[in-house]
Amino acid sequence: MGVAFSILAEDGAARTGLLETAHGTVRTPAFMPVGTAGTVKGMTPAAVAEAGAEMILANTYHLMLRPGEQTVETLGGLHRFMSWNGPILTDSGGYQVMSLAGRRTIEEDGVTFRSHIDGTSHALTPERAVDIQRRLGSDVTMALDECTPFPATHDEAAASMRLSMRWAARCRAAFRERPGHGLFGIVQGGVFGDLRRESAAMLTGIGFDGYAVGGLAIGEGQETTFGVLDETLPALPTDAPRYLMGVGTPSDIAGAVARGVDMFDCVIPTRSGRTGRGYTGAGTINIRNARHAGDPSPVDPDCPCPACAGYSRAYLHHLFRAKEMLGPILLTTHNIHHYQRLMAELRDAIGSGTLAGFAARMAEGEAAA
Amino acid sequence: MGVAFSILAEDGAARTGLLETAHGTVRTPAFMPVGTAGTVKGMTPAAVAEAGAEMILANTYHLMLRPGEQTVETLGGLHRFMSWNGPILTDSGGYQVMSLAGRRTIEEDGVTFRSHIDGTSHALTPERAVDIQRRLGSDVTMALDECTPFPATHDEAAASMRLSMRWAARCRAAFRERPGHGLFGIVQGGVFGDLRRESAAMLTGIGFDGYAVGGLAIGEGQETTFGVLDETLPALPTDAPRYLMGVGTPSDIAGAVARGVDMFDCVIPTRSGRTGRGYTGAGTINIRNARHAGDPSPVDPDCPCPACAGYSRAYLHHLFRAKEMLGPILLTTHNIHHYQRLMAELRDAIGSGTLAGFAARMAEGEAAA
Repeated sequence: MGVAFSILAEDGAARTGLLETAHGTVRTPAFMPVGTAGTVKGMTPAAVAEAGAEMILANTYHLMLRPGEQTVETLGGLHRFMSWNGPILTDSGGYQVMSLAGRRTIEEDGVTFRSHIDGTSHALTPERAVDIQRRLGSDVTMALDECTPFPATHDEAAASMRLSMRWAARCRAAFRERPGHGLFGIVQGGVFGDLRRESAAMLTGIGFDGYAVGGLAIGEGQETTFGVLDETLPALPTDAPRYLMGVGTPSDIAGAVARGVDMFDCVIPTRSGRTGRGYTGAGTINIRNARHAGDPSPVDPDCPCPACAGYSRAYLHHLFRAKEMLGPILLTTHNIHHYQRLMAELRDAIGSGTLAGFAARMAEGEAAA
Repeated sequence: MGVAFSILAEDGAARTGLLETAHGTVRTPAFMPVGTAGTVKGMTPAAVAEAGAEMILANTYHLMLRPGEQTVETLGGLHRFMSWNGPILTDSGGYQVMSLAGRRTIEEDGVTFRSHIDGTSHALTPERAVDIQRRLGSDVTMALDECTPFPATHDEAAASMRLSMRWAARCRAAFRERPGHGLFGIVQGGVFGDLRRESAAMLTGIGFDGYAVGGLAIGEGQETTFGVLDETLPALPTDAPRYLMGVGTPSDIAGAVARGVDMFDCVIPTRSGRTGRGYTGAGTINIRNARHAGDPSPVDPDCPCPACAGYSRAYLHHLFRAKEMLGPILLTTHNIHHYQRLMAELRDAIGSGTLAGFAARMAEGEAAA
């Protein structure tokens, strides 16, 4: 039952392994492109897979509102609906709902909110969050949590975390075990190490297929994130996957992998791709900048992706200036490739026991930019 | 020199053949997807080719303004710039410039206009139109013409057409002969058969690699278009390709092919794909319509394209409602496939001498919708 996780090699605190789900096996550390509304913006599922992504994330909040989990279930589930046959992790909807300032009310039972689309009222409880994700067909279901506001006092963070822990226990009870389908708990506790450790211990006591670290994608900065990981990860089981939600830049990811994180998701590569920011081994470029207007070289000369193989910076610059869809399509494709290549390199480095050297070279490349 | 055209089979006035250019051979009748600014909106060149398109059209007006023909030339020409290795036909810029009401001045020498992008002033003469297209690297260059306004009196249409004929002669003189590169003249004359015949005779006297029929994509209706073709095509050389500019619907194309047209371009499949209109063998559907919200069938059950193979109407409906890029991407892909499949069927029908039966079945299918 659940999803299976096996560690193939370790390098310091870092690990590389395999997460086995009902829809296939994912090599970790893994980066999941974000398919908010059932689509990785600007890419076909075939292009996402071609980039090397083995698992994607979809958002419960968006899908429950539109088209609705009943529609998705009737149409055969999210995999079939969006034509992605690999593993899918769904978030619980909590993160998006919490960000609806002034439009949501949190109580012990759950959260009620008004849709950002049409203003209709909805409720999300731990049980309902689990049920929606089951109807969507998620391989990995996330427990409903309250994303602790930042900044928060110790008392506020403690109260918020303990509510999330009671919700996590209810999610565990509500989750229907099925082979290849798992439920992850989410560690909260803000920036406070004692609360993070308390949260990790409570989740471990309940028992989950994997453990996420939440609440770290809302502006704390890399040092805070790494500090929280340093407090939290040692308090989690070593034999279960660890997932750092909503993070981050290549540098964030490399640092988190070195600390023992196995899974990531983030909108950075897709959102950057739409706004004209391209990732390279030597930092990022803004393709809209006039200096690229006549540049025949690709976004990243070292990148084997189809966008870099076929198109110049000058052409992408032109597409963005002319507001042509192909600009965001190509730059998103490149960025997702860039992220997936980073994950492959991290996995290889861990496998060969050379992660420290890889991280140092990566930092040099970015510093040289 | 020039482009070579050979007719493989005829069926009534219709013909199927081969147009050989510096960048490959095009089976005719052919439909050229429109890549206005150096991109077929929403599709990679690989996807355009996979749909069966062998030649595309790009717009001189848009490219001379942005990124500028000098930039394109410096970067190795339009084929390399946009990563399309097949034949490219460029229009002359005349059609777009003429539509800049209040922003352009037409004189004997040419036309001056202000850019729709930044208001800068530009001039387009027959010589400059040919030079720009050479710098872009077009396989087929179109002569600069004045697109006669519709409606126009006989006198207005005659004066406009004769200016276009003087410009056509200047284009012919300015065109540099290169193997695999051709120059097409454009028949004008509005809705007046005598003027169309006069224009066709004048162009034939000058001598071009192919002959286009212009001025028929601005709202005249199918009967008028077919009437003009019936007057014009018999006055053109039978051994040169005929190109009906800016037309049209599948029904328009089938009727024009039956009258002897070999080449088409139109924004309909791409523009429709972006606005949610999908082509099927039984007419068009508006994918945004609520009746598609739960429909598990593809846009066209008879279509083998990747969009119809992988995605339901319900999913495309969802994507359009959620304003996701993948909606226009998939529906444009389908529409281009639909048009290319139509052309393949028309070529096959001509080859087997069954065009009349095919056209009748096609009309029945659309009527049944």
